[in-house]
Amino acid sequence: MQVLILGGDGYLGWPTALRFSARGHDVAIVDNFARRYWHLQQSTDSLTPIASLEDRIGAWEEHSGKRIQSYVGSVDEGDFLDRVVGEVLPDVVIHYAEQPSAPFSMKSRHHAVLTQRTNVIGTLNLMFAVRDHVPDCHIVKLGTMGEYGTPNIDIEEGYIEIHHKGRSDVLPYPKLPGSLYHLSKVHDSHNLHFACRVWGLRATDLNQGVVYGIETDETALDPRLATRFDYDEVFGTALNRFCVQAIVGHPITVYGEGGQTRGFLNIRDTLQCVEIAATHPAAAGEFRVFNQFTEQFSVLELAHLVQRCAGEVGLDATVRHYPNPRVEADQHYYHAVNDKLLELGLEPHYLGDELILSMLNVIRQHRDRISLSEVAPKTRWRPGELGDEEPQPATGANGASGDDDVLGEEGVPGAAV
Amino acid sequence: MQVLILGGDGYLGWPTALRFSARGHDVAIVDNFARRYWHLQQSTDSLTPIASLEDRIGAWEEHSGKRIQSYVGSVDEGDFLDRVVGEVLPDVVIHYAEQPSAPFSMKSRHHAVLTQRTNVIGTLNLMFAVRDHVPDCHIVKLGTMGEYGTPNIDIEEGYIEIHHKGRSDVLPYPKLPGSLYHLSKVHDSHNLHFACRVWGLRATDLNQGVVYGIETDETALDPRLATRFDYDEVFGTALNRFCVQAIVGHPITVYGEGGQTRGFLNIRDTLQCVEIAATHPAAAGEFRVFNQFTEQFSVLELAHLVQRCAGEVGLDATVRHYPNPRVEADQHYYHAVNDKLLELGLEPHYLGDELILSMLNVIRQHRDRISLSEVAPKTRWRPGELGDEEPQPATGANGASGDDDVLGEEGVPGAAV
Repeated sequence: MQVLILGGDGYLGWPTALRFSARGHDVAIVDNFARRYWHLQQSTDSLTPIASLEDRIGAWEEHSGKRIQSYVGSVDEGDFLDRVVGEVLPDVVIHYAEQPSAPFSMKSRHHAVLTQRTNVIGTLNLMFAVRDHVPDCHIVKLGTMGEYGTPNIDIEEGYIEIHHKGRSDVLPYPKLPGSLYHLSKVHDSHNLHFACRVWGLRATDLNQGVVYGIETDETALDPRLATRFDYDEVFGTALNRFCVQAIVGHPITVYGEGGQTRGFLNIRDTLQCVEIAATHPAAAGEFRVFNQFTEQFSVLELAHLVQRCAGEVGLDATVRHYPNPRVEADQHYYHAVNDKLLELGLEPHYLGDELILSMLNVIRQHRDRISLSEVAPKTRWRPGELGDEEPQPATGANGASGDDDVLGEEGVPGAAV
Repeated sequence: MQVLILGGDGYLGWPTALRFSARGHDVAIVDNFARRYWHLQQSTDSLTPIASLEDRIGAWEEHSGKRIQSYVGSVDEGDFLDRVVGEVLPDVVIHYAEQPSAPFSMKSRHHAVLTQRTNVIGTLNLMFAVRDHVPDCHIVKLGTMGEYGTPNIDIEEGYIEIHHKGRSDVLPYPKLPGSLYHLSKVHDSHNLHFACRVWGLRATDLNQGVVYGIETDETALDPRLATRFDYDEVFGTALNRFCVQAIVGHPITVYGEGGQTRGFLNIRDTLQCVEIAATHPAAAGEFRVFNQFTEQFSVLELAHLVQRCAGEVGLDATVRHYPNPRVEADQHYYHAVNDKLLELGLEPHYLGDELILSMLNVIRQHRDRISLSEVAPKTRWRPGELGDEEPQPATGANGASGDDDVLGEEGVPGAAV
């Protein structure tokens, strides 16, 4: 297969590129290094040192003899993406090229607009490029479980059969997302569904849970192949951040009672799911939705798991509860269906002590790269409510005092635009 | 009340400004003349001659002694809108400032991106400006019945109670919109709902049917106060276009069997509904949805109504059926609820012969301004299927032969950005 990966320099995009290349597919990637640039802007960095894209590609060629093609540019530039799709003529496009952080999208009007413009217009451009050059190509888009919110009924995979006043229909599952980032993914889902209904394109929307983990089979081969590992409040996700907190001796920070329940999965299972989707394409005209996670946990369960594992390696981790800067229920019903990927052969790597211990081990190796100030969040869903948006060191009521944490980004901790 | 009208130079925006001013409210409007500019680009124009905004405002001051304040600029420029909202400090914002045409949004990638960028980012900017300056202000946004599509169950007003696997919840009504324009309105609805849920803003989403009519009490006072009347394939709507076709002797063009059923309302009722919403504001934190139409008709019913009325004034109008350039069912279940505005006191002007006869009369007065080539549509939902997107006079298979029509824009035939 000819595989085109948008956001192929990112946390998931790069390991995905390696995985498809290792399986013998021809891989091209697009990236504009937005994630690296956003880190520069906030003076943060990946915990793992990561090589430049050129060096990564060179290292992979050394190991595998295979060359990954790369295009540097932004998917929100329509002419650029049109040219790339017309040149590569992919059988499948894996679309990770979105701004993936909920806290980022809530920082300010500028960040909200950047997020929705980047994500919505990038996906629109992709729809048109595929329609015009490779209408039979399968679009695999990374969505997020966070699109659904926390309804009081079971979360189905994309659609729900509704019985109403003596009639019935199968309709898109209603969405109640929890951030302006999550909203951008809802918009993408609606747009892409339309492209399938009206133009006959084929797409799979992978509504992904929170991803954890650092290594995959291919990234572990060589330090130059490592993928990024974000632990800052903007791009880091819950479990990853909890492990970093345990290593540096910061309390594991739980919002409210920590009853927020979400779906989670190992980075290795992300790659497995994307591969399953790509090798079992949607039909022409079909907009297929898979809920992509392997287990559900509450935030408090994860905190206790990390605490226990930390204890096993001699770290005295504590768990503390804080007011929630997000607007979300911290006790709620949550039951999401995730049958379809399992039916297609997904073999989950469930979360256990072993994985946590290995993460703690990798994080410890890079302990000197951890910036303590990044353990604390600064973004409020309702500015002004818990203090101003900027840290106020004098009062200690805000992020700079290291008092808070975030659930993490439930979406695609993917790559740049 | 201090009323701020975004898109206040448009088909509905201008009469709305006059109406609120006539009722004694202080009115400010924002417009960037995008609608006038898009007409320049396509060499089309309003059937009714319309005065410049400055002349309109001057004429209204002559008649009423009241001055309407105006700001020329685009709502998708965040700093501009932020400054206007901070200066005007409105009690209510009426948001018409969107690209309102489905065919426009389907012309090309450029048009699709322009539509979604303008509408989504304009609304995001409004949310932030209201949050930061006047969090108690009521946002009245024009949505469209077209957001719902044509599901096989009754269309409720914004929300639906779903019973599923022994549990239940009231969730946003699922959306299946029929164009990239309609999708932009779905995105707006989701974003604005979020602003209410999370920031505690108050908003009313008016999911409007297809508007028809030319005059309101205030626009009829003086030719300089006339509002625009679009009959071209991009900005014209079904009934308005049918009347123009009858006047010029073009067959009334019905797609397929003409069973497409939609909600319709008189332009006078649009103003009534907007006023009802503004004077009965949503509660803080409430995202209220009203379905804003007064009657349901099929396209064929409207065609026959216009045909009959044309006959009464000596015009021999014919009705012809054509292949549908849109992707939509032309026979389907359709029953939409519209109780809430009626409960708040809406007194509908139902569609009857009298209204059609008066429209035919006004159109006849401007017969010499009608461009015959504009009676025919050129935009295909699936390019290539019924021929190329551009007219092909040689084959006669396309728009230039005058063979087709559109259902019209079901959304807000409102104003510019």
